[in-house]
Amino acid sequence: MGFLDMLRRAAIINDSLVCVGLDIDPGKVPSHLGAGIPVLAAFNRAVIEATADIVCAYKPNAAFYEALGPDGIRLLVKTRRMVPDTIPVILDAKRGDIGTTAERYAAFAYDVIGADAVTVNPYMGYDAVKPFLRPGKGVFVLCLTSNPTASDFQLLDTGGRPLFERIAEAANRWAAEGEVGLVAGATRPEHLGRIRDIAPGLPILVPGVGAQGGDLEAVLERLGGAPGKTVVNSSRGILYASGGPDFAEASRAAAIELRDAINARRGRRQ
Amino acid sequence: MGFLDMLRRAAIINDSLVCVGLDIDPGKVPSHLGAGIPVLAAFNRAVIEATADIVCAYKPNAAFYEALGPDGIRLLVKTRRMVPDTIPVILDAKRGDIGTTAERYAAFAYDVIGADAVTVNPYMGYDAVKPFLRPGKGVFVLCLTSNPTASDFQLLDTGGRPLFERIAEAANRWAAEGEVGLVAGATRPEHLGRIRDIAPGLPILVPGVGAQGGDLEAVLERLGGAPGKTVVNSSRGILYASGGPDFAEASRAAAIELRDAINARRGRRQ
Repeated sequence: MGFLDMLRRAAIINDSLVCVGLDIDPGKVPSHLGAGIPVLAAFNRAVIEATADIVCAYKPNAAFYEALGPDGIRLLVKTRRMVPDTIPVILDAKRGDIGTTAERYAAFAYDVIGADAVTVNPYMGYDAVKPFLRPGKGVFVLCLTSNPTASDFQLLDTGGRPLFERIAEAANRWAAEGEVGLVAGATRPEHLGRIRDIAPGLPILVPGVGAQGGDLEAVLERLGGAPGKTVVNSSRGILYASGGPDFAEASRAAAIELRDAINARRGRRQ
Repeated sequence: MGFLDMLRRAAIINDSLVCVGLDIDPGKVPSHLGAGIPVLAAFNRAVIEATADIVCAYKPNAAFYEALGPDGIRLLVKTRRMVPDTIPVILDAKRGDIGTTAERYAAFAYDVIGADAVTVNPYMGYDAVKPFLRPGKGVFVLCLTSNPTASDFQLLDTGGRPLFERIAEAANRWAAEGEVGLVAGATRPEHLGRIRDIAPGLPILVPGVGAQGGDLEAVLERLGGAPGKTVVNSSRGILYASGGPDFAEASRAAAIELRDAINARRGRRQ
């Protein structure tokens, strides 16, 4: 089963568009657990076990593991194996290179880590995306981000259209060659609507949405709530919901809260 | 001593603009050496020892090490330590993320690996560059690449100017906040000239130049040959110059050939 089918199926079975970002941070793991790689592994395992029936995907962020050195890579491999086979794992790596280098990054994501999908930076064009398009694997192309300086380049006018729309158009074309999605932050709703119009069939991964507020409303209104089409990521809000001994239960409760907040707003644009 | 001073000093002492790309590839290391991580380490050590007085920098490509898993990261750390203190190490990582994630990638590059500089993807704007601007460290911003689909986005017209020129302009501004350079492939000479005009004081890292041909001529004519301002990278051409027992001598000879080919064309636009 390919990534997109796996994502859709997980979203249907768990009735959820929630993706949990596994951004492991030694400074945020409950202090009563102690320290060290085994503790971080135990923490990830507890959170995954507490949320695996509430989510449609997990998204470990490569940076947090790489910052821990070689043992961090081992922890990432181990963490990936903790995820049940029915839930896809998206490696948030935002790699962007070409040729043999991109092939090596694909080998890292798929062969070393065992990810089902990866996030990729499109600045170098299709050459930077193609090596990641292995059969059955998914590639989320960075399109629009919600940080302040996204406007430095992503919103630049390129012949009547902002750059991010060109990237959404390109990704929509690339989807003929493999399983392609987009990454779009919950910024101005009109931008999300444009992205959905340009790429009506692509899964869109939305990072950084809180459980409350208009963000969520706008995201679902503009992107739609069909399973496998919109993936709403929350990292710290779920992972570090509590710093106490109840951390796993608190993560589960936070994941349920986000799932339900999303589900209450789904259905308008399936 | 900061990265830019180190780069300039190495270029002067070794009278060289050559950077050797340490893209370790188990399939290309001479077969008589055998296999395994210790062999790759010995190979890197032999090449570094054979070229350290011929180059101004080394550029290990993170992808090639990450594809080897946790032991590959160890090999990268070890390889970095093989480089003499007088020669800067540029980690070719092309990372592009923001906030705490970018901080973790900076920790990977500088604290885990011990790099003096790193390549960064600017698509997310200054937020993706700033966390890498530690005092004394260098950041090479991806500007113009020489792959065929660079034209997908880098050459898009943005109000009368191609996107890559906007990025060169931004990097030139960011250089007020830290040690910033650009990455520009040896594509059409007029583009290199524009980049140098926009950023007259920035070091420009040029990947993928062969020892012969008009590429080198154009690169030096347009970018100038001042020490620390133009860095010409060659990876496979030097690293795998021979597949036999003479591999280290062959690497040295290839590095000398490239250094001399560059030096014969330097001086017009210092």
